[in-house]
Amino acid sequence: MNKALSFTETHFDRFVDELIDFLRIPSVSTDPDHAKDVRAAADWLADHLRKLGIQTVDVMETEGFPIVYAEHIVDPTKPTILVYGHYDVQPPDPLELWDSAPFNPVIKNGDLYARGACDDKGQLFMHLKAAESFLSGAKALPLNVKYIFEGEEEVGSEHLPGFLTKHKNLLAADVAVVSDTALFGNGVPSITYGLRGLAYVEVVLEGPDRDLHSGVYGGAIENPINALAKMIADLHDENHRVTIAGFYDNVIALTPEERSTFASLPFDSDEWVHDVGAKKPRMENGYSVLEGTTARPTLDCNGIWGGFTGKGAKTVLPARAHVKISCRLVPGQTPDEITAKLKAHFEKHVPATMKLTFTNLHGGHGALVDTNSDAMKAASEAMEGVYGEKPYMVRCGGSIPIVADFKKILGQETVLMGFGLDSDAIHSPNEKFGLDRFRKGIDSIIRFMDIYSKG
Amino acid sequence: MNKALSFTETHFDRFVDELIDFLRIPSVSTDPDHAKDVRAAADWLADHLRKLGIQTVDVMETEGFPIVYAEHIVDPTKPTILVYGHYDVQPPDPLELWDSAPFNPVIKNGDLYARGACDDKGQLFMHLKAAESFLSGAKALPLNVKYIFEGEEEVGSEHLPGFLTKHKNLLAADVAVVSDTALFGNGVPSITYGLRGLAYVEVVLEGPDRDLHSGVYGGAIENPINALAKMIADLHDENHRVTIAGFYDNVIALTPEERSTFASLPFDSDEWVHDVGAKKPRMENGYSVLEGTTARPTLDCNGIWGGFTGKGAKTVLPARAHVKISCRLVPGQTPDEITAKLKAHFEKHVPATMKLTFTNLHGGHGALVDTNSDAMKAASEAMEGVYGEKPYMVRCGGSIPIVADFKKILGQETVLMGFGLDSDAIHSPNEKFGLDRFRKGIDSIIRFMDIYSKG
Repeated sequence: MNKALSFTETHFDRFVDELIDFLRIPSVSTDPDHAKDVRAAADWLADHLRKLGIQTVDVMETEGFPIVYAEHIVDPTKPTILVYGHYDVQPPDPLELWDSAPFNPVIKNGDLYARGACDDKGQLFMHLKAAESFLSGAKALPLNVKYIFEGEEEVGSEHLPGFLTKHKNLLAADVAVVSDTALFGNGVPSITYGLRGLAYVEVVLEGPDRDLHSGVYGGAIENPINALAKMIADLHDENHRVTIAGFYDNVIALTPEERSTFASLPFDSDEWVHDVGAKKPRMENGYSVLEGTTARPTLDCNGIWGGFTGKGAKTVLPARAHVKISCRLVPGQTPDEITAKLKAHFEKHVPATMKLTFTNLHGGHGALVDTNSDAMKAASEAMEGVYGEKPYMVRCGGSIPIVADFKKILGQETVLMGFGLDSDAIHSPNEKFGLDRFRKGIDSIIRFMDIYSKG
Repeated sequence: MNKALSFTETHFDRFVDELIDFLRIPSVSTDPDHAKDVRAAADWLADHLRKLGIQTVDVMETEGFPIVYAEHIVDPTKPTILVYGHYDVQPPDPLELWDSAPFNPVIKNGDLYARGACDDKGQLFMHLKAAESFLSGAKALPLNVKYIFEGEEEVGSEHLPGFLTKHKNLLAADVAVVSDTALFGNGVPSITYGLRGLAYVEVVLEGPDRDLHSGVYGGAIENPINALAKMIADLHDENHRVTIAGFYDNVIALTPEERSTFASLPFDSDEWVHDVGAKKPRMENGYSVLEGTTARPTLDCNGIWGGFTGKGAKTVLPARAHVKISCRLVPGQTPDEITAKLKAHFEKHVPATMKLTFTNLHGGHGALVDTNSDAMKAASEAMEGVYGEKPYMVRCGGSIPIVADFKKILGQETVLMGFGLDSDAIHSPNEKFGLDRFRKGIDSIIRFMDIYSKG
C-alpha cells in the first residue's frame, strides 16, 4: 500500500494531465451531435485501462452507448470489488456563463474547471489511478477488481439494468464501489449510506376543450389553473406534511442514533439557506434541515404551466393546466407504491368540473446501506487514514438509482465513497473538482483496496 | 324611414361587395408589419364616408394610429348621436386553422368569412350604410351624426381617452352608439345594458435566488410553485366566492327584476356548457350561469408558469413561480379599488419563506346603462320593428372600457346595439358575420335614427 501511495505522490502531475485529456472529450450523452464524442470517451477509457495493464478490457455494446467493462483477477479467493462510474457528462449550456471553455480544462487556485471534472470523469479516474499505483508502484493489485463504466448516466441509465441482468455472473463481486457523491463539506470526510428515491409524475386538468374568453365565460366555467392550484395546495397540511393517503406508511423512520448523528454534523443551517438566497428554511414540522433534505420524503412541483404566459394582459380562461410533481422517497417507500398513491389521490379529489390526465414519468428507488459491513468499515478506516479523522456517515437527498439495481439485480451492497462538493457546480456552468480532493480520493481508494483485501 | 329601408333592400348586394373590399385590408394593429395597412383602412373609411356625402370627414392623427372623425349636422336643434367603431382587427393567427384566407372574404351559407367581418368592420359598416340609405334613399339624415372610428381597439385603445378629452366639444352628442357586441342568440334580439370591468395583475413568488436540485434541497427549501398554488387556492372559499377582503363591498347587487329577466331569457345552460366541452358549470353559490358570467365579479388565473415545462422529468426546485390573475368587475367596483385590495391580500398572506412581486398590468371600468333613457327606448323599438319582438335587455360579461370613458369624459350614455354572435369566432380562426344580421343591423340602425330623431 505504501508503494502505491508513493507512486501516486510521484506521478500525480501526470495523473492530472491525463484527466485533462479525458475531460477534453465532449461526451454529452443527451446531445445527438455529440454521439461520436461519447463513443470516443468510451474508447479513450478502454485504451487507458489497457495501458495500465488491466487484464481484460472490453467495450460492450448496448442499444445505446457502450459500457466499458474491465476486470483484473488477482486471486479468486480474494475479495472482488465492482467499481461503477460514468464517462458521459451533462450538456455545458448555458455556455455564456462559463469563465473558461467547458471542454478546455484549466486549473485555477488548485481547482480543475471543466464539464465532467467532478461528475463523473474526475471521480471515476481516481479508481484507474489507484489501480495504476498498485500495478506500477506495488506490482500487483491487492484484490480482484471489475470495472463497469456507462455512457448514459446523464440520460437515465436506460440500458444499464438490462446489462446487469444479462451479465449477472460476469459482474459478480462482493461489493460495489461508486465515487459519484459529495463530501459533507470541504475537508469534512464522509461516506453516504442513504439515498432518496424518486417518483415523478405529470398531472393535467382540462376544463373546457379550448381556451375561452374570460369575460364571456368567467364566472360559470371553472378555471383549470385555479382548480389545479387548489389540488396542489391540498397536497400538504399545516404541518408541511404530505396529505396523500398512506404516504408515510412504509417510511423507515430515523433511529435516535441517526438523529443524534445528524445533530452533531458540522452544519450551519442559516449559512446554508443564505447560500441559496432564500429567506428561511421550511421543513416538515419536527425535523431539521439535514433531516428534511436527506431522510424525509418530499413532494415538490418541478414545473407548472397553463394559459397565457407571454408579456402583458391576455384575458384567457385556459382549457388546461399542467404540473410536474415529484416526490423524493426515503428507504421503505417505492416509486410504484407512491406513484399509485398519488394517482389514487388525484383521481379521488379531481373536481367534478375537470378532466384529469395522470402520467407516470419516472421513478427510482432509494437505498440504505448497512454501515457495519466489512466494506463500509474498510472505507471508513481508509478515509480516516487520509483525513486524520473518522468520516461521518451521512445521507444524501438525491437519487442514484443504480445503487438499488446493484442490490436488486446483483445482490451487492454499494459503498458510496465520493469526493465532490455541493459547490462543484455539477450540472451547472464552471463545474470543477479540487485537485486536493482528486489526490485524497486516489489515496482513499488505495487504502480501501488494501484494507478490504485483508477482509 | 321607409325610403331608407327600401334603399337598403335594393342596394344590399352592393353593400356586401363594399364591405368585402374593406375586409380585404389586413389592418392588424398589433403587427408592425401591417402598420401601412392599418392606415390604408383609415383612408379607405374616410374616402367612403366622403363618397356617401357626409359633410365633414377628417383623418385625425394621434400618437398611434389615426382616428377617422366625420360629422353630418342636419339641424342643431335635432338630437345628435356619436357612433363609435374600430377599423383595426385581431391578428389572423393561427392561419392553418382558417378554411379560407382571412383577408380574402368568402360567402358560405349566408355567412361572410373574414378577419374583421364581425369585429368590427362589418358592424361599423352597418352605420355607414344606414346613413347612405337616408342620404341617397330619403335625401336627408333625420338627425345629426358624428362618427369616431379608431384603429387601436385591438391593442388597448391607448390614445382614445386622450383624444376624447382633447376634443370634448367636437364630440358633444346626446348619446353614443356602439355596434361591437353580440345578440343574445341567433334570432334573439337584445340590447346590452351592462358590461364588466377588469383588473389584471401579475404575481411572482421567489424562494431561492436560483433553480435548485430537488434532491439536494427538497424538504427544507419551500417550493415557490407549491407556495403560489396555496395562495391561489386561498383566493376562493368553499362557496366559490372570492376571499379578498372587501372584494364585494361596492358591488351593485342585481335587482329582483333583473334576476327574473335573467331567468326568463331563452338560455339552455346544459347546451352552453356542452358547447365549450366542459363537464359542468360552476358558479359562485346562489347564482345562475348567466348571472355568474355577466353580473357577478370573478377571479381567474389567466396564465401560470414556473420551473421545468419541457418534456420528461427534470428534478428542479425552481426559484420562481409566476401567475397572471384577472378579475372581471361589475358596476360599483373599480379597477383601482380591486387592484389595491388584491395587492393588500397578497402582501398580507405571502409566506415568510417567499419574496413577492406584485404588478398591476391593466384595468378597465365596467358600465351600467340606464335602460329607460329615450335612446334605449328608441333602440328597443327599432329592433322590435325589425325582429317582430321586443329585444331582451341583457348584460355582457366582457369589457368595453370605452363605454366608461364616454360617460366619464364626454358625459354620454352609450347604446350598445350589436349584431354579432358568440359563434362568430371573433379573435379566432374563421371569423364570420351572417349577412342576414348585417342586413337586420342596418335596418335596426335606420329605424333607431328615425325614432330617436323624433325624441
